[in-house]
Amino acid sequence: MQFVATEHQHRRLNPLNGQWVLVSPHRMQRPWSGQQEKPQLNEQPEFDPNNPLCPGVKRPNGLITDRYESTYVFDNDFPALLEEVPSPPASDDPLFQAAAARGNCRVMCFHPKSNLTLPTMSPTEICAVIDEWIKQFNELSTKYAWVQIFENKGASMGCSNPHPHCQIWSCSFLPTEPQLKQERLRSYYATYDRPMLSDYVNSELQRRERIVIENPDWLVVVPYWATWPFETMLISRNNNKRINDLTTEQRHNLALTIKELTIKYDNLFQCSCPYSMGWHGAPTGPEHAHASIAHWTLHALYYPPLLRSATVRKFMVGFEMLAMAQRDLTPEQAAQRLRDVNGKQHYQSK
Amino acid sequence: MQFVATEHQHRRLNPLNGQWVLVSPHRMQRPWSGQQEKPQLNEQPEFDPNNPLCPGVKRPNGLITDRYESTYVFDNDFPALLEEVPSPPASDDPLFQAAAARGNCRVMCFHPKSNLTLPTMSPTEICAVIDEWIKQFNELSTKYAWVQIFENKGASMGCSNPHPHCQIWSCSFLPTEPQLKQERLRSYYATYDRPMLSDYVNSELQRRERIVIENPDWLVVVPYWATWPFETMLISRNNNKRINDLTTEQRHNLALTIKELTIKYDNLFQCSCPYSMGWHGAPTGPEHAHASIAHWTLHALYYPPLLRSATVRKFMVGFEMLAMAQRDLTPEQAAQRLRDVNGKQHYQSK
Ligand SMILES: O=P(O)(O)O[C@H]1O[C@H](CO)[C@@H](O)[C@H](O)[C@H]1O
Ligand SMILES: O=P(O)(O)O[C@H]1O[C@H](CO)[C@@H](O)[C@H](O)[C@H]1O
Repeated sequence: MQFVATEHQHRRLNPLNGQWVLVSPHRMQRPWSGQQEKPQLNEQPEFDPNNPLCPGVKRPNGLITDRYESTYVFDNDFPALLEEVPSPPASDDPLFQAAAARGNCRVMCFHPKSNLTLPTMSPTEICAVIDEWIKQFNELSTKYAWVQIFENKGASMGCSNPHPHCQIWSCSFLPTEPQLKQERLRSYYATYDRPMLSDYVNSELQRRERIVIENPDWLVVVPYWATWPFETMLISRNNNKRINDLTTEQRHNLALTIKELTIKYDNLFQCSCPYSMGWHGAPTGPEHAHASIAHWTLHALYYPPLLRSATVRKFMVGFEMLAMAQRDLTPEQAAQRLRDVNGKQHYQSK
Repeated sequence: MQFVATEHQHRRLNPLNGQWVLVSPHRMQRPWSGQQEKPQLNEQPEFDPNNPLCPGVKRPNGLITDRYESTYVFDNDFPALLEEVPSPPASDDPLFQAAAARGNCRVMCFHPKSNLTLPTMSPTEICAVIDEWIKQFNELSTKYAWVQIFENKGASMGCSNPHPHCQIWSCSFLPTEPQLKQERLRSYYATYDRPMLSDYVNSELQRRERIVIENPDWLVVVPYWATWPFETMLISRNNNKRINDLTTEQRHNLALTIKELTIKYDNLFQCSCPYSMGWHGAPTGPEHAHASIAHWTLHALYYPPLLRSATVRKFMVGFEMLAMAQRDLTPEQAAQRLRDVNGKQHYQSK
């Protein structure tokens, strides 16, 4: 029998972390009688006097959110990372190892209106978000080894406030995922003398099986090793290393790419599509200021949980937690659907 | 300022996979206005003529579930792994690596009655579950490198059928998590000449900060590196390597331990506590039949998602997916609560 990827289960290697993903496309037929998600709809009022992220509203700690007109950044009132804390004592027991963790956590509102999201904002407004990301990154990257810009969108992705916003958590150390990526990218570069992700972009442009969006500056693909059903990577085609080395033109194209991708996500299942997304680029801070970063390529990762509809998600549970990631449709099938769905007009716009 | 683990954020190393966890206990005060879980209550009828896991009911594929009286095992009607599939072609491109994956997926009912769960079953009935696990493991382990026994409990952990059951997925290869564990356990053994988890058990018995349940055969702790808020490890104290080398006495004590632990989980937030759990032990199959397994210790992992109540869970989303795991209370605080909560009488029993 001949191998057919859309019919026969197989594993694929994620070269960015060295982990395999089990692909079981024949499983898509399975009926679903489990948990139904509440489909995320955009039913927010433009202004909610009780929402602490809205302009002019008092937050639980007594501070008042500015009457901002574009983006707005403030320190997270309940940060997971603080700047000044004592370090845990050293231990010589290999089973009880603790280490210091310093950092800070900021909240960044995208827009004063609660009823907008990136796909329904204008390219100019999205440009303001990108500019603010860069401004924050510029400031935080002088001090911290890792600046994680990320957006949790939708209640099912743990987002506790419907106002359009993201978070920026900075760390005095390189966290697990970037550390692993740093090692893998570096070793690829040592072998091939080219950044892994620029080779990857070139291969995907040739193979043309997993492309969702392409323009001169950016490529969006469902990676060959995608774990989440409609996971995508948005990759720089210009050898950018960090978000703050983008030109004005590249930022402008990024705004258009983000708008198109997030419209596609919303149109796919006709809902305000939940996801977690974030940026990965070369590490920062004093300790990485003089290190080689030739192996890095700036990219964003989008992880939407939905599998079949606005109400049926993929659960990464028992087998996935204990053994390995598993997916039910091939990355090529997901890419085809995202490619085919309208990315110009949001399903709610008339 | 002196370091206090319950006040000051820090990182802890998981020696089983080499990953760090960010512990931010000062964050527990954060108000929650995000998604509310539907509390899982046990409101099933004893028998549901439309539930394919109930005795005598016809399944979607036309087969009829036996009129079973204890446990019952059948092949998953929509398996992620099949025994006979062609292998993907070899590739010499490091960015596009695929590999064969063969296996099988079974469903195992714990009891004929839909309205029972492990904490409400009798020790004798739980013993029957353990015996069936072993019977299945005996059969499958002759053929497969990895036999993953796991239970997804509760709709919020992706369980699509409320009837008490677990799954057994067998693989022709070692999946990611066991592979990583295999390497770490082996290298610890090479250095110290003792199994890592038996050293760990001894340390926990001395330190006495994270113990939830202890008896001559089993130790349940919230591991020092726990990721999920109330995560536990149930570890063999007898140098067992695989589930099928347990003595009758050890099985009996295991049934009591499982009952006590799952009663504690249900009593903690007064609900049928959701979790994913599963067993890890030495790899199997022809390729591991003659390999040294001295570095292994049989253990089960419990991953319940709840954080503060039956309706507020921990989300592993943006920062966790992109950077590293993060938790909001210390493992010692979680252990204390699990230790203190009643483990003898289920909150619903009169
Ligand atoms: O086979 P089930 O129970 O329907 O499926 C459940 O467990 C599987 C194994 O952890 C997961 O892949 C599924 O996402 C989950 O819904
Ligand atoms: O700070 P938030 O948005 O309330 O919290 C959300 O994002 C955090 C970072 O991914 C997670 O740790 C929380 O579990 C999630 O609910």
